[in-house]
Amino acid sequence: MKFNINRPAFIKYITDVQRAISSRTTIPVLTGIKMVADKTGLMLSGSDSDISIEIFIPIEDESNDLEIIKEGGIVLPARIFNDIVRKMSDEKLTIEVGDNLQTHITSANAAFKINSIDVESYPNFPTIDSNEVISLPTNLFKQVIQHTVIATSTQESRPILTGVNITIENGTLKAVATDSHRLSQRIIPINIPESLSENSYKVIIPGKSLIELSRIVEDQDTIDMMVTENQVLFKAENLYFYSRLLEGYYPDTNRLIPTTSSTNLVMNAADLLQATDRASLLSHEGKNNVVKLSISDEKVELSGNSPEIGTVREDLQYQEANGDPLVISFNPDYLKDALRTFGHQDVMVSFTAPIRPFTVVPVDNHTDIEQAFIQLITPVRTY
Amino acid sequence: MKFNINRPAFIKYITDVQRAISSRTTIPVLTGIKMVADKTGLMLSGSDSDISIEIFIPIEDESNDLEIIKEGGIVLPARIFNDIVRKMSDEKLTIEVGDNLQTHITSANAAFKINSIDVESYPNFPTIDSNEVISLPTNLFKQVIQHTVIATSTQESRPILTGVNITIENGTLKAVATDSHRLSQRIIPINIPESLSENSYKVIIPGKSLIELSRIVEDQDTIDMMVTENQVLFKAENLYFYSRLLEGYYPDTNRLIPTTSSTNLVMNAADLLQATDRASLLSHEGKNNVVKLSISDEKVELSGNSPEIGTVREDLQYQEANGDPLVISFNPDYLKDALRTFGHQDVMVSFTAPIRPFTVVPVDNHTDIEQAFIQLITPVRTY
Repeated sequence: MKFNINRPAFIKYITDVQRAISSRTTIPVLTGIKMVADKTGLMLSGSDSDISIEIFIPIEDESNDLEIIKEGGIVLPARIFNDIVRKMSDEKLTIEVGDNLQTHITSANAAFKINSIDVESYPNFPTIDSNEVISLPTNLFKQVIQHTVIATSTQESRPILTGVNITIENGTLKAVATDSHRLSQRIIPINIPESLSENSYKVIIPGKSLIELSRIVEDQDTIDMMVTENQVLFKAENLYFYSRLLEGYYPDTNRLIPTTSSTNLVMNAADLLQATDRASLLSHEGKNNVVKLSISDEKVELSGNSPEIGTVREDLQYQEANGDPLVISFNPDYLKDALRTFGHQDVMVSFTAPIRPFTVVPVDNHTDIEQAFIQLITPVRTY
Repeated sequence: MKFNINRPAFIKYITDVQRAISSRTTIPVLTGIKMVADKTGLMLSGSDSDISIEIFIPIEDESNDLEIIKEGGIVLPARIFNDIVRKMSDEKLTIEVGDNLQTHITSANAAFKINSIDVESYPNFPTIDSNEVISLPTNLFKQVIQHTVIATSTQESRPILTGVNITIENGTLKAVATDSHRLSQRIIPINIPESLSENSYKVIIPGKSLIELSRIVEDQDTIDMMVTENQVLFKAENLYFYSRLLEGYYPDTNRLIPTTSSTNLVMNAADLLQATDRASLLSHEGKNNVVKLSISDEKVELSGNSPEIGTVREDLQYQEANGDPLVISFNPDYLKDALRTFGHQDVMVSFTAPIRPFTVVPVDNHTDIEQAFIQLITPVRTY
């Protein structure tokens, strides 16, 4: 194998592939980046066996100055390879596999010879049947990811909750995540081809995979999704992103979302976020990490305290507060995560009782779909 | 005590004072920031007992909107106080000491009450006799710090080597640091008042103190230095920076610096830095962290290797190479630190033998002072 390539362009590609590569894998060959050159272009692959990423650099795309001089393939240690490519000084980079599985990396006057691994020992990625292709609107789907992964669990005690539960049916994609203390739900309309319109797809995708996907996928119109029993493939231009699926039953979350409320607060999400951030300064110092919201006819007050440090209280500036007076305590970090997903929008916070979950939804839903965007938080019982 | 102040301006001041405050001190009151308001202004103090910083905010400086409503003083927990002030939302901040040593911090609708410490329990800073004041050119002295602290030791086995040895006499300031593997020396001319011109001052200032000083002192013409037996005070406008001195005898470093050379290499410091950085990619992977420089009549080659990963070699692009052929091995990190102090200047690297220290000096010294700027590195014996 031998090729020349534009070094700055190449850095971006290998950095993207490296997102899938972990240095802590138990399979040594997976610490490497796989490169295969043929006359159509160069394929780069990386995997940690949960996520696999393939990027194809076609020979036609002139911005890469890719010149395949000899076909072939090799696996190089990914971390040091990335460092080497970054620290070269010239625009042009040449990579050539020499004798004894040594790869020559040269740019300007610097020449590295790196011990490499035979490409045949790299595991094959799953083949995914591509008859059923669902096209997702890229930017909207990236939003769905950002708005729901915050509620995935980071604890492996209930592995199923580390994923986002995605259901595609009747022209919508519904994403739900919950760590059992809070829940995020987002529903978006999607276009499904006529031939698949009767089908329904239910997959639980690891939150980590979705976060990496949203980082790597460029802003483009659509991204294609293909599902098999235990794998999902997202395909964008020249990018193949594979993730394993989580197996098991995701809890029924529909019954968790309250449909009525007895107290409502409407205010700007960014303002409420800032106030909650201030209150959490003191709750973080205490053992319980709980802040208190009091809604009365006169005012809406948020307060926090730490026996050692002191107290904080703040009159919130709201647009509207109605319903029964209420005092409720909760983990401020859950509310902060939830509020960040709304940016500077106005939100409605709806309560039923001090021991019942409360919800945060945008005042303006921008859609006819019911419960299209909900953040739900379970309060903390403080007595 | 009660005062109002412009919050953005105040954030800068308390952040500067906090540089001296450690959360890991064994003296609880030193985790606090001391504030004393009188009719002339507000004094902020912080200390970790090695470094003490005082910043005075005069009432006349209108950019701070400082309004002293009631004189007095208090000590507040520094870290959380800084967080609170940062996370407020209004321009205006009010601080008032209430009953039971509780301090009220208010801005817009948010009100914190923070448990505080009686100002009387805060230790006094040393009084420093100010008859002998030496004025240092601020920017040049900050350069001296940056160019020498790199060679201070970080190991406490020989505490004296964690400092920079500063000698002021005959109209010059000489700064030397060495960790016994490398040495940095910088000499600058300074103006000494007639009355002190016969004096000489020798102090060993902890490298950490100098780094903090160079971070905090604003770009201004001069900074005043005053020395007592075990303390040094640097005084700029409204800033008092105290550091303890290291006690003991600093080794005589003059005899370490070679005065002759048998091989010389002239090249751009930035180019040599990049090449050394590349070579160190592989030396870092091995046990020894050593790279090899070979100077022959035909070429100058830098190489590095790691038995596991591979090898790198590079023909250096130099301006001039003369003298005896030479092969020398050294720790690339020492050379990288040294080269960074020269920016994009051309440097002369001078060798006497493979087992003798070599020096790096700027080709253009910009001064008549001999040995005004020297970086010295001890090679590694590899046979």
